[in-house]
Amino acid sequence: MSSTIPIITFISDFGYQDEWAAICKGVIYRISPTANIVDICHNIPNFDIWKASFVLSSALPSFPVGVHLAVVDPGVGTQRRGIVIKADRGDLLVGPDNGLLIAAAERLGGIREVTLITNDRFWLKPVCPTFHARDIFAPVTAYLANGISPAEIGETITEESLAKSFWEKPRISGRTLECQVIDVDKFGTLRFNVESSFLETQDLSLGETILMKVEFPSDLQRPHILAEVPFGRTFGDVRVGSPIMLVDSSGYLCLALNQGSAAQHFNLKRGDRLTLRL
Amino acid sequence: MSSTIPIITFISDFGYQDEWAAICKGVIYRISPTANIVDICHNIPNFDIWKASFVLSSALPSFPVGVHLAVVDPGVGTQRRGIVIKADRGDLLVGPDNGLLIAAAERLGGIREVTLITNDRFWLKPVCPTFHARDIFAPVTAYLANGISPAEIGETITEESLAKSFWEKPRISGRTLECQVIDVDKFGTLRFNVESSFLETQDLSLGETILMKVEFPSDLQRPHILAEVPFGRTFGDVRVGSPIMLVDSSGYLCLALNQGSAAQHFNLKRGDRLTLRL
Amino acid sequence: MSSTIPIITFISDFGYQDEWAAICKGVIYRISPTANIVDICHNIPNFDIWKASFVLSSALPSFPVGVHLAVVDPGVGTQRRGIVIKADRGDLLVGPDNGLLIAAAERLGGIREVTLITNDRFWLKPVCPTFHARDIFAPVTAYLANGISPAEIGETITEESLAKSFWEKPRISGRTLECQVIDVDKFGTLRFNVESSFLETQDLSLGETILMKVEFPSDLQRPHILAEVPFGRTFGDVRVGSPIMLVDSSGYLCLALNQGSAAQHFNLKRGDRLTLRL
Repeated sequence: MSSTIPIITFISDFGYQDEWAAICKGVIYRISPTANIVDICHNIPNFDIWKASFVLSSALPSFPVGVHLAVVDPGVGTQRRGIVIKADRGDLLVGPDNGLLIAAAERLGGIREVTLITNDRFWLKPVCPTFHARDIFAPVTAYLANGISPAEIGETITEESLAKSFWEKPRISGRTLECQVIDVDKFGTLRFNVESSFLETQDLSLGETILMKVEFPSDLQRPHILAEVPFGRTFGDVRVGSPIMLVDSSGYLCLALNQGSAAQHFNLKRGDRLTLRL
Repeated sequence: MSSTIPIITFISDFGYQDEWAAICKGVIYRISPTANIVDICHNIPNFDIWKASFVLSSALPSFPVGVHLAVVDPGVGTQRRGIVIKADRGDLLVGPDNGLLIAAAERLGGIREVTLITNDRFWLKPVCPTFHARDIFAPVTAYLANGISPAEIGETITEESLAKSFWEKPRISGRTLECQVIDVDKFGTLRFNVESSFLETQDLSLGETILMKVEFPSDLQRPHILAEVPFGRTFGDVRVGSPIMLVDSSGYLCLALNQGSAAQHFNLKRGDRLTLRL
Repeated sequence: MSSTIPIITFISDFGYQDEWAAICKGVIYRISPTANIVDICHNIPNFDIWKASFVLSSALPSFPVGVHLAVVDPGVGTQRRGIVIKADRGDLLVGPDNGLLIAAAERLGGIREVTLITNDRFWLKPVCPTFHARDIFAPVTAYLANGISPAEIGETITEESLAKSFWEKPRISGRTLECQVIDVDKFGTLRFNVESSFLETQDLSLGETILMKVEFPSDLQRPHILAEVPFGRTFGDVRVGSPIMLVDSSGYLCLALNQGSAAQHFNLKRGDRLTLRL
């Protein structure tokens, strides 16, 4: 393919048993015949913006600068807006303004500019009210890959006006972190909203202990948790069934159990807030 | 890839846990190294020609003109024939003569020419009797993409000799349509064999009521259905739990329930016939 | 894409609901922007090296000569080695030294040369101890596709030092074969470690009978099996529910039941050893 066409990635909750994902690709190829479309994945649980946001933010830093189409869109057909985010690395992220794109954009260097998708010259018409992916997001993605600038797609809006990311930023005070569980993977490993790049600025050695404290003010039935967990490099650094904190391949700080499920062991789930003392 | 090689799409019931789909792609790349193969999907339920036919007919109109490989082939190894259909738009559809390709060809402008695959010069030999996809359909697809004409693949046959499509055409008399449920999607929305292009020729306004009548002469246990359903634009046009008729993204007339399953509500399933009065 | 870049195939147990497979592709595209990456499949059951080995060996002979990335890697982070196998056909297979690559290499003409992956100049750093696929195997695959020679990737090692294939080679004495069940497909068809190329050297006609004998010395609860099964061309050569031996599309000798499960009928499973008398 032409070296002037950037790579296009595509993530959605469309699944692999229906026509939706293929249709969007067809639309892109009609506008950009030599595009290179790479699936991130399409088996995101229906409407699970949070999970898609996590997968996207974990995957995109490994990709070349490109145009990234992301569609998990429970608000399709309502007044939710369509946006293009330009990340500092140069990537363009295309999708609904529902928080889905924020974490990935921050991982790609931060949000440089946000464009509201308003210029219907780049849409397929008539626009189907239940399938903006086909009629708005896919063609906009293809035109951006072809070199159309975001300024032609619509008007610039402020970052502040965007729907917020599903997860919070950690609050850091000295060596105390108030953070959040942002993902539980299929092995039960808990991922926190703490970047490896932050940990590298801390004086934290392998084998040191991290103090973890969890309270549930809004659910008095759940008992408090207080635990000391070693910081390590890989699951096998602790005995089978023992907990360990480490940075896994997602680049986030994680709490895992060697050959077990940390989520089950600690009874923690996505969204839970906790305090870590490094 | 070279702009002279058309896109190749591929749909099958091979699934994503075995080697079958990959093998067909390997065969194509050996014959057409710069081909651009795009998966429609491979999770069609085993042998479900009807579902594949629906997905294919919904997906292909969004694609550029290309060569389309479709393999759901319960009759492989029997006397069922292999065919290439040239659609009016210029597309070539390759697969078994079991009704799978008809609906898609009609959506691409209609059937212009049908070729029986008989010239074994373009096959891999020996032909495995259980895997014509690898030994006949995939190489024929690749050679067609390379510019070999259907006339070299085999002899022309008449459209009338083809196995019929799984679903019927609607019978239209004035504003009365005798139609059929041709698909039930994962949300329970019922799709009818009525094209949006037909509806556009009718004087049907948003908010108007459609009278639906269903009888089951061959199953006296199933009670008749008589219902008035509003014609709308999107699910949210009616109250939660209420039925609505609309054209969904497949381009077919549908019966849906706002945030519910029309299939369950009306106890209707694929293949059922009904009468609509616009 | 440039005709000088060989095709890259990719098989793993990463599934289709997480970011792992996409991340590896991103890494490859960053190093080899015009690569053509083709998925074999990513739904191999977790850690099932045996199944991946079978699927890979069945799929690759249909592909052009290329670079083949295979990751089912329960030993990641331990002392298991990373290797590149050059097959006689010219293909390069990249993955862990756990037996995964052997059967495919033999199908591609045999093992010509084995390289230990030791030169960290071609790795992403820091190497994550739980994700060598991203940091070692994917970049090595991309550099090999770009024309870097295996000699630059690391040092040559002997074939004898490799972890063994999961399945045995058959022992052949005259017309008596001691062989093994190496796969059970989703229909219950049993595949043996007997290549069609071997059978072609035998004087075995369609319709002839093969005597099958199975004993279970290590499990006295399982009754012996003694059966005469006809050698045929396709399932339909015998009556519904009857057994047949044939070469299926994998290229291995198989025991099938016409419209039934041979695995269930004979109570046989992967790994079982048996004696065939042609």
